[in-house]
Amino acid sequence: MPPDTLPLTTVEDAQRMLDQLFAPWVQALGLQARSVEGSEVCLRLPVGHEMVHGGGVVCGQTLMAAADTAMVLAISAQLGAFQPMTTVQLNSSFLRPVPRQTTHLDVIATVLRPGRQIVFGSIDIRLPDGKLAMQATTTYALL
Amino acid sequence: MPPDTLPLTTVEDAQRMLDQLFAPWVQALGLQARSVEGSEVCLRLPVGHEMVHGGGVVCGQTLMAAADTAMVLAISAQLGAFQPMTTVQLNSSFLRPVPRQTTHLDVIATVLRPGRQIVFGSIDIRLPDGKLAMQATTTYALL
Amino acid sequence: MPPDTLPLTTVEDAQRMLDQLFAPWVQALGLQARSVEGSEVCLRLPVGHEMVHGGGVVCGQTLMAAADTAMVLAISAQLGAFQPMTTVQLNSSFLRPVPRQTTHLDVIATVLRPGRQIVFGSIDIRLPDGKLAMQATTTYALL
Amino acid sequence: MPPDTLPLTTVEDAQRMLDQLFAPWVQALGLQARSVEGSEVCLRLPVGHEMVHGGGVVCGQTLMAAADTAMVLAISAQLGAFQPMTTVQLNSSFLRPVPRQTTHLDVIATVLRPGRQIVFGSIDIRLPDGKLAMQATTTYALL
Repeated sequence: MPPDTLPLTTVEDAQRMLDQLFAPWVQALGLQARSVEGSEVCLRLPVGHEMVHGGGVVCGQTLMAAADTAMVLAISAQLGAFQPMTTVQLNSSFLRPVPRQTTHLDVIATVLRPGRQIVFGSIDIRLPDGKLAMQATTTYALL
Repeated sequence: MPPDTLPLTTVEDAQRMLDQLFAPWVQALGLQARSVEGSEVCLRLPVGHEMVHGGGVVCGQTLMAAADTAMVLAISAQLGAFQPMTTVQLNSSFLRPVPRQTTHLDVIATVLRPGRQIVFGSIDIRLPDGKLAMQATTTYALL
Repeated sequence: MPPDTLPLTTVEDAQRMLDQLFAPWVQALGLQARSVEGSEVCLRLPVGHEMVHGGGVVCGQTLMAAADTAMVLAISAQLGAFQPMTTVQLNSSFLRPVPRQTTHLDVIATVLRPGRQIVFGSIDIRLPDGKLAMQATTTYALL
Repeated sequence: MPPDTLPLTTVEDAQRMLDQLFAPWVQALGLQARSVEGSEVCLRLPVGHEMVHGGGVVCGQTLMAAADTAMVLAISAQLGAFQPMTTVQLNSSFLRPVPRQTTHLDVIATVLRPGRQIVFGSIDIRLPDGKLAMQATTTYALL
């Protein structure tokens, strides 16, 4: 099945898309689909030692990768299926360090404004206690 | 040797820092130090199939991870040695797709404005022909 | 009363700060304080013809100026009083055009993460029907 | 002459566009066209007391407005004439305070990547001694 016919309305769809569409290096993060509600998609990022840098906290690179990935799913959920798209801008703010003992992070992506060409979205990444670790705002272009 | 005494004035220093400081998942990118001139650091990102997503182009997550990594080195070069720091914001613009056949990307990070607490920087990621694939602007906080 | 002793806990405080602290060119926007709740401040921006460009819509420059202004108030509300600060980054996304017939915009600024040195915030600018016209994410440094 | 036939290849064209297209509140800044070279446009912003806030420095709102304005001209220069467009995102970094005694600022806007739909650009705002006061990266959509 070519990528552009992948539907996205359920958590299973989201997991399938995670398993099929993304680059192997991104798949190595082990992101898990948790919920799909309208155009809001929630993923879980299990924290592993391979994400931790010399300072003992989860590296920001991991968070940006998870945010971008979640947004592709949220836009697909808003459209009902995957459609080729490209990230135009992704602006990340790192609000709190993520300690290495953290079990997982919740990555919640939402479409703020759909469009035929340009889609605006935002992503919150939260610690298990709900505190915001990272927030990103993005624009994507549909191809 | 604890991370906060790693000097950074040469390409070898930069490579050592790449090998010791960053998270294993980031090290898997295989970034190579190419030059250190003042506070400008150039890394090479060899393009591999594990960075390519279902659409056949290098995923943006790879570029953001390379940009953030290069900036840590550029700030360390400006300071003369690594110092604990944290990314505050990283804003990425994706100007051109990077085709899967691309052999490598050049990642050039520069300190725009040093500071005791906040450091401003920018990163260009270029295709082998010199064209800009991605540009990022960042702020870091020294800890 | 020197600026750095201006308290900010009420709408009247917010209006006084708008009238005293900001540059005359910003004051010309006629921003009105509407509510102060914790660290969330809501301002009203009355739309005037002097904000409309040749394309017949309210210019983005107006929205960025209103967002930055509202954030200074929100940070002051979070601190309980104005304190010298400087904008580090302000990232604006323009989601919808604001037609010239619009009577006013609501500018809602919130502190996402306070800090001794760096404060993270976000600003929503909404049309009278509640739709998002602009969203900004910011970092400020307390001086 | 309707706006969408305004050519932009010379400094005089740029000044005419400044005088005709922008909102009166933006025109009040008194921006002056200085040079047009390819898709790079340089404007001068004369600093006036009406741009200075209670802390004694030029307000960031002024810099963002100048940056956005200059970018519209740079894109028009790249196209050869004004064409309806809208700012998608504008990300501003404030690197240095601009003291009230500053006589003027140079606002240099460049198209980084033209496109049929999306245009990427960057803007540097420099003090008279050449130091960078503000840097912005932007995306615009051509309508």
